[in-house]
Amino acid sequence: MAFTVNVKNASGFAPALAEREVLAAHETLVNGTGRGNDFLGWVRLPLQNNEEELARIEAAAAKIRSNSQVLLVIGIGGSYLGARAAIEFVRSPNYNLVVKDSPQVIFAGNTLSAWQTAEIFDMLEGKDVSVNVISKSGTTTEPAVAFRLFREYMEKKYGVEGAKERIYATTDKAKGALKSLADANGYPCFVIPDDVGGRFSVLTPVGLLPIAVAGIDIRQMLAGAKSMAEKLIHDKSMHNPAWVYAATRNALYRKGYTTEIFASYEPRVRYTAEWWKQLYGESEGKEGKGIFPASVELTADLHSMGQYIQEGERFLMETVVGFAEADETLQVPFALKNEDGLNFLAGHAVSELNNMAEAGTILAHMDGGVPVMEVTVDNASAYCFGELVYFFEFACGLSGYLLGVNPFDQPGVEAYKQNMYALIGKPGFEDRRAELEKRL
Amino acid sequence: MAFTVNVKNASGFAPALAEREVLAAHETLVNGTGRGNDFLGWVRLPLQNNEEELARIEAAAAKIRSNSQVLLVIGIGGSYLGARAAIEFVRSPNYNLVVKDSPQVIFAGNTLSAWQTAEIFDMLEGKDVSVNVISKSGTTTEPAVAFRLFREYMEKKYGVEGAKERIYATTDKAKGALKSLADANGYPCFVIPDDVGGRFSVLTPVGLLPIAVAGIDIRQMLAGAKSMAEKLIHDKSMHNPAWVYAATRNALYRKGYTTEIFASYEPRVRYTAEWWKQLYGESEGKEGKGIFPASVELTADLHSMGQYIQEGERFLMETVVGFAEADETLQVPFALKNEDGLNFLAGHAVSELNNMAEAGTILAHMDGGVPVMEVTVDNASAYCFGELVYFFEFACGLSGYLLGVNPFDQPGVEAYKQNMYALIGKPGFEDRRAELEKRL
Repeated sequence: MAFTVNVKNASGFAPALAEREVLAAHETLVNGTGRGNDFLGWVRLPLQNNEEELARIEAAAAKIRSNSQVLLVIGIGGSYLGARAAIEFVRSPNYNLVVKDSPQVIFAGNTLSAWQTAEIFDMLEGKDVSVNVISKSGTTTEPAVAFRLFREYMEKKYGVEGAKERIYATTDKAKGALKSLADANGYPCFVIPDDVGGRFSVLTPVGLLPIAVAGIDIRQMLAGAKSMAEKLIHDKSMHNPAWVYAATRNALYRKGYTTEIFASYEPRVRYTAEWWKQLYGESEGKEGKGIFPASVELTADLHSMGQYIQEGERFLMETVVGFAEADETLQVPFALKNEDGLNFLAGHAVSELNNMAEAGTILAHMDGGVPVMEVTVDNASAYCFGELVYFFEFACGLSGYLLGVNPFDQPGVEAYKQNMYALIGKPGFEDRRAELEKRL
Repeated sequence: MAFTVNVKNASGFAPALAEREVLAAHETLVNGTGRGNDFLGWVRLPLQNNEEELARIEAAAAKIRSNSQVLLVIGIGGSYLGARAAIEFVRSPNYNLVVKDSPQVIFAGNTLSAWQTAEIFDMLEGKDVSVNVISKSGTTTEPAVAFRLFREYMEKKYGVEGAKERIYATTDKAKGALKSLADANGYPCFVIPDDVGGRFSVLTPVGLLPIAVAGIDIRQMLAGAKSMAEKLIHDKSMHNPAWVYAATRNALYRKGYTTEIFASYEPRVRYTAEWWKQLYGESEGKEGKGIFPASVELTADLHSMGQYIQEGERFLMETVVGFAEADETLQVPFALKNEDGLNFLAGHAVSELNNMAEAGTILAHMDGGVPVMEVTVDNASAYCFGELVYFFEFACGLSGYLLGVNPFDQPGVEAYKQNMYALIGKPGFEDRRAELEKRL
């Protein structure tokens, strides 16, 4: 088996894009000749062998695993979604509840909720803790505020010297507030490359350290990404699965399918969907354009969003991420009295039911007017996660160029920050503050 | 303070609906003269005082709390989303990780994932368990399969007699597979009223038993719902907050705003958003119509979906659910060296930052072309959750009638079930099976 993309239930809904158009987007991406080309470090990242960095990450992870019951990861957006996606996908969506052989990984600094932050303090009680603070600049409000709070906590708990043994910074190689702070305090540093944006950073130390702490084989993950990169960079044809996905979703978008639902039949894929929503939403949602990314967890949400998908407004397309292999251990038991009438299922594997639900739903949605694309990986290994990550990243670059935007900037993220700074009284924002307060 | 709905940042985006149109929808709903009027039991439910049922629920909850470390709730769609929403809203989104004074509440039967189901078995290990199986018919595949598996587990663990003391059925008052099975086995039963659909059932025993087990005051929750019902049923004017919300979102929909994003700045509201997505998506998404419901958790998702919301396709409206009261205990600490430049925030409560982020984002989104509605409750009490639930339910009924659909059916949910039954080989589906298999 292998990684596949299947669009037979989608391609009939819109005229296909010309192959030369996809080729042009491919050349633009691979040759670095398009908009945002100073942020293309992720394209060849998995082809590089940075043994020294990997060894440092593995050593830090081993130390954290040996001296901590909790790794607190402080980061927002691309600085936590990739790691959380990997941990849920490879280990479990209930990782912190069930884990026994690795530290819990608790994500902080991705909220300004005082309730949530106070609760994290409760969750640390009685446990040994390490902290990985992840920020390119060190001045993004959410993680910076959280790091102030948790650094103080660590220094109280372990002393200033002790805290140095337990705080790891993932940040710029040379500049920025977090880099200065880390250097001044002697925290070990890992580098966020200059040419890799946050939403493309899961295969850099941003993702690698927390993922390794969770007991996942990061070399296998990188090997999966590498094999995918070799395929996608070199195959200039419609056999390239990234071409198929990017071309199909753009063809559908031009035909009026403006919303894409990322669906999976496994709860472990939920945060991969959240990671995907940032990747595509932030890369494409600009200049009044872009496919709106949404997600569902099936079959659960067939009993909530299912009605809308089947019969609501017809601007939906769906992308199902599935698994080729199935564990058939768990079977539906036979019941002597058959009170629920389910004996016709007895002896079937639960995973077989899930597969039939998936196959049946794809056809039902297609019949209801929703084009469905299918992305299938073999299993929930680190290797397959790496494949999936690189596939979606590469297809995202292609897709953004097909759409005609710069897929690597995010100018709209500033708007709320400027207003927040003004309202909270940041020096230099006095005029804006006066203006906004009139409107509250 | 009190419950408020504020549409000043939305109403300028579309011509208002005529008041007589909203009045007509109100009369249709309250007088029960419209489509789906056999499913209006929820409208006056909070006005009834069913003391006997409440006392039975509280007694069952007390027993479960005294003899179990886990309550396993088996149900899908409306049979779990309401309870999960309440537990996360009133207690915590990390309830199962942090709870000390109540049983964990684990939701099963809302998936066909074998991985997830097997993991739930692991999570039960070494713990005393009770089960609440929730299904009107008892034949919905997901919960029925799960109940076969977990009933077998309970009978092995506690013996057939012991299991009877730990299994509770919430189902039809008289008919159906689960009712028969429960009666035959002597499981205590709680009633799902005939005239209340799944997505409107959180204030019936469907929600009440698991919510009470989690240590939440269900009488307070019902009191909040009652006070809201008294207001919404009787106020036939644009002072009625449900009128304001239903009329505004329909006015926007008619103007081309086809997607509504439910946003909150508190992680504890995440599953209330999931519950809301079922409520509105299933009620309105039919006949090729309806607002597509999506959700974000802010400020986290300002660093993922924020770019799209600010600058993507302009068919978005946003509804922010916020809190009037704030806990100001947690403050940003002062840092002697001010390495991160955040000393201008020192001494501010984190909740104040969150409020400024919310206020600033609302203005930024509005300036970006996204109309924003605001729904504000006082706090995260059971009472306020009850208010919120009834408000969204009543507004949903109004909204569905304004849209011109039957808000109380869900015909599209059958499509996937039929295909799944056929593919898995359910007797009677042989022809469909042959047809579908050709298409796989």
